[in-house]
Amino acid sequence: MIERIAILGTGLLGTSVGLALKAAGFKGSIIGWNRSADGAQKALEMGAVDRLATDPILAAREAQVTVIALPIYATIDFMEKLSGVLGPEHLITDVGSTKRMIVDVAQRLYNRPETAAFLPGHPMAGKERGGADLGDAELFRGAVWLFSDDRDARRTEGGKALVKAWREWVAAMGSRVIDIEPARHDEMVAWVSHLPQFVATALSALLEEEVGDAPELKDVGGRALREMTRLGASPFSMWRDIAHTNTGPVEHALLLLEQRLQHLRENLRTPALRDEFEQANRFRQGQ
Amino acid sequence: MIERIAILGTGLLGTSVGLALKAAGFKGSIIGWNRSADGAQKALEMGAVDRLATDPILAAREAQVTVIALPIYATIDFMEKLSGVLGPEHLITDVGSTKRMIVDVAQRLYNRPETAAFLPGHPMAGKERGGADLGDAELFRGAVWLFSDDRDARRTEGGKALVKAWREWVAAMGSRVIDIEPARHDEMVAWVSHLPQFVATALSALLEEEVGDAPELKDVGGRALREMTRLGASPFSMWRDIAHTNTGPVEHALLLLEQRLQHLRENLRTPALRDEFEQANRFRQGQ
Repeated sequence: MIERIAILGTGLLGTSVGLALKAAGFKGSIIGWNRSADGAQKALEMGAVDRLATDPILAAREAQVTVIALPIYATIDFMEKLSGVLGPEHLITDVGSTKRMIVDVAQRLYNRPETAAFLPGHPMAGKERGGADLGDAELFRGAVWLFSDDRDARRTEGGKALVKAWREWVAAMGSRVIDIEPARHDEMVAWVSHLPQFVATALSALLEEEVGDAPELKDVGGRALREMTRLGASPFSMWRDIAHTNTGPVEHALLLLEQRLQHLRENLRTPALRDEFEQANRFRQGQ
Repeated sequence: MIERIAILGTGLLGTSVGLALKAAGFKGSIIGWNRSADGAQKALEMGAVDRLATDPILAAREAQVTVIALPIYATIDFMEKLSGVLGPEHLITDVGSTKRMIVDVAQRLYNRPETAAFLPGHPMAGKERGGADLGDAELFRGAVWLFSDDRDARRTEGGKALVKAWREWVAAMGSRVIDIEPARHDEMVAWVSHLPQFVATALSALLEEEVGDAPELKDVGGRALREMTRLGASPFSMWRDIAHTNTGPVEHALLLLEQRLQHLRENLRTPALRDEFEQANRFRQGQ
């Protein structure tokens, strides 16, 4: 039943959504918009979108479903701009990495009889670098796609059917859908996504300082070092918004990791080191 | 010129050495010994060794080159046992992850006119789990194989030719050889190998505590989480000896990472966060 989709932001995620929809058999039209013309053109060339819009607001008005695939503050900007021009026949969804602030804005501006529906979404997929040219129809296959509270979005006139249809397309892209409350979402991703990222950033930054002048030694670390620092390539532009909108849970997780590292450092020669390894082993056995 | 090799310890590394030697065209005989009969039998079945020894000392006496592929303290035990029974026609080499203590023992017991030669080695390759059944002829391809000070080993009667021949076999297994002084080796691997391991252990142990009771949430982290915790599966039995024999450099590296994480935590909403990401980006650009 969805025939027209607008994708605002044809970076890695937006482009991948377009490609994945096409691969899953979406036969309707996909309109793309991107702040930089290069990224838009690339998405068009790759076939992720059928045509480009010069005005994102008009593109969203033409579409039944608008996917905002931008950093969090830019997402909120568009939520504000679109709230006055879209009506109950529209659904907006997003792919932002934190959900409390976006849900707050959605509760203020959407999901009422006279407004469009807003469905807060978060596909747990990405790469350490962004950009349309890395777009990948398989990016979401096997990944979890989180939705934070779709009950509100189902309350509008068009929302119920569009939410159901969009969830089916997400499943068709290969993702497993999990529903989770926004506050729980942000706490949980602080552990399983944001903490690993900030650890990789700190580790990479420290290693740049300590061994960065001896590039041949980076090879010495092999696969283990490459994996532990891969996320060091992640762009600040995306993570700034995450750090700003999930500060409390990330601070908490970082503090506990600092304490854990200190404990490990103080016990390199005591039996407590065995306990740490055994607890870590248990985490991996569960994977 | 090497016709008989003994491998003491047919775990992941020892078995892989045997398989890689065969794959590289080694036509001589390889005798294997392992503390547990199961691991020895598995290495034999996989073709990593031609036959098994019941007495590791006799196996080493029969061989021109003995490869000790055991944790560090077990390696040192064998260095002591073998020093009285091998002569200048023998070369011993090892694969231990720290080199200062092993070089100290080697200087005390080996590399004299009447003794065997000892060449301290360290292939920068491994997997997060051990065992003969994970043995892999390709494990060392593209990896760096470090030697710590091969000058001493070249001084014995048989050492010079055997060291040269063994280095050629290491290259034939696909590794790039780098020579490095033992103290510099231990400082350097503290940064590029031991720090990443202990971070992965602390992160995995912390996550087990925080989200271990919700296994479905582990999937949410996706590839990034899997990579950042893969080393959490590493066995304490191996890392205990590393923590004991490289305590100072590892303590230093951990302390600096704790400080770096604290700095990042205190700057989640300041421009200093950008500096951290950009420094981390530079490390990855150099990779």
